[in-house]
Amino acid sequence: MARKPADQSVNREEIITAAADVLSRRGYETATMKDIAAAVNLTAASLYHHFRSKDALLLAVLEMGLEFTINRIQPITCQRGLSAEERLRAMIREHIVGVADNPAVGAAMVFEIHALSHAKPPTRRAKPEDVQAFEAFLTQRDAFFRRRDAFEHLFRAVVQEGVRSGEFHPVDVPIFVKALLGANNWVGVWYRPDGRLSGEAIAAEITGYFIPALVMRKGARDGLV
Amino acid sequence: MARKPADQSVNREEIITAAADVLSRRGYETATMKDIAAAVNLTAASLYHHFRSKDALLLAVLEMGLEFTINRIQPITCQRGLSAEERLRAMIREHIVGVADNPAVGAAMVFEIHALSHAKPPTRRAKPEDVQAFEAFLTQRDAFFRRRDAFEHLFRAVVQEGVRSGEFHPVDVPIFVKALLGANNWVGVWYRPDGRLSGEAIAAEITGYFIPALVMRKGARDGLV
Repeated sequence: MARKPADQSVNREEIITAAADVLSRRGYETATMKDIAAAVNLTAASLYHHFRSKDALLLAVLEMGLEFTINRIQPITCQRGLSAEERLRAMIREHIVGVADNPAVGAAMVFEIHALSHAKPPTRRAKPEDVQAFEAFLTQRDAFFRRRDAFEHLFRAVVQEGVRSGEFHPVDVPIFVKALLGANNWVGVWYRPDGRLSGEAIAAEITGYFIPALVMRKGARDGLV
Repeated sequence: MARKPADQSVNREEIITAAADVLSRRGYETATMKDIAAAVNLTAASLYHHFRSKDALLLAVLEMGLEFTINRIQPITCQRGLSAEERLRAMIREHIVGVADNPAVGAAMVFEIHALSHAKPPTRRAKPEDVQAFEAFLTQRDAFFRRRDAFEHLFRAVVQEGVRSGEFHPVDVPIFVKALLGANNWVGVWYRPDGRLSGEAIAAEITGYFIPALVMRKGARDGLV
């Protein structure tokens, strides 16, 4: 099939989106920079101009997914006049709908995050600029892991606040949040855009499973039961 | 360091256990058959005698994890005289304690299962026995995915039964089970053997989050509320 000459005007975001898609179809190990370049009609050489390695590109995909989610969830955590329950409900909804809207990125957040920890360091004979690039990658990766922890802490803070005020049962906050985020992240594994339920409907279901564990029955809260 | 001559008497199970450990430390992409062979003091050539490819070895790791879990959970599903709630509690406990007892396999069940879908087919010039071996791998892989579905159905059946009998709220059974298994599987991602809580304690917490969503309050069940 004839192919148009490679278009060098493609932007960073288009590359990242295409990379997420190629990764979700082929997996991190089998996907090549050439596959990803072809998906945005770039030559492999000019893709390397944007991203020095497949690891760097994977990190960019995961960063995009995480920032997207944090940007939706962070504002909810500081909304005045909402109870902890109302905020938590809205946060779960944003998380799950975000995953369902971007299933390729959602799947990468589960399956490929591990690859970041196993990125290959440059060999002894590597050029100084490759060594430097790898060090920059490690710095950026550590910042990503800190952002991911900050994301988890947004959820912990809301649950903790509800427990402190007596609005919620005294659950083990870190474990509760890990169970909740496990269920939410798992949506990225099984969700299909042509499936039976929308992201909204799935979010409503999953919210309904976790909230009853937290919310005191009126009588219990008042010490009547 | 001097190394003992490769010991050819090592058995299949020892290889699989060592492979799970190497995969969890190095990741599927970076781990090599040579690493895994070294971990059990085999030559790479004799490891290939046991497993024709890294894909085949990964599949063996995942099969071992899944069978171990099914063997603990299946008997619970047919125990007479237990309510759906009692059975579900015991099943969640076995699942999570099993993951916590085998964190390397637990992590592989989340992170590496994807690689099975991206196994590289033999090239056009491959020897007939390699083509045959790949076809056998595909057959075995499909059987594994069916077993995994069967595992999920054990949970669905118990929840469904509780919903039918009116013991449980009418949740969306497939979604409820995916949320539950997502939370349980995620334990394999974050659990550390030297962490604050044992597998038992984590199982008790997570059970306590999911059961309240299912179990009707006495008054509600009797139509009094």
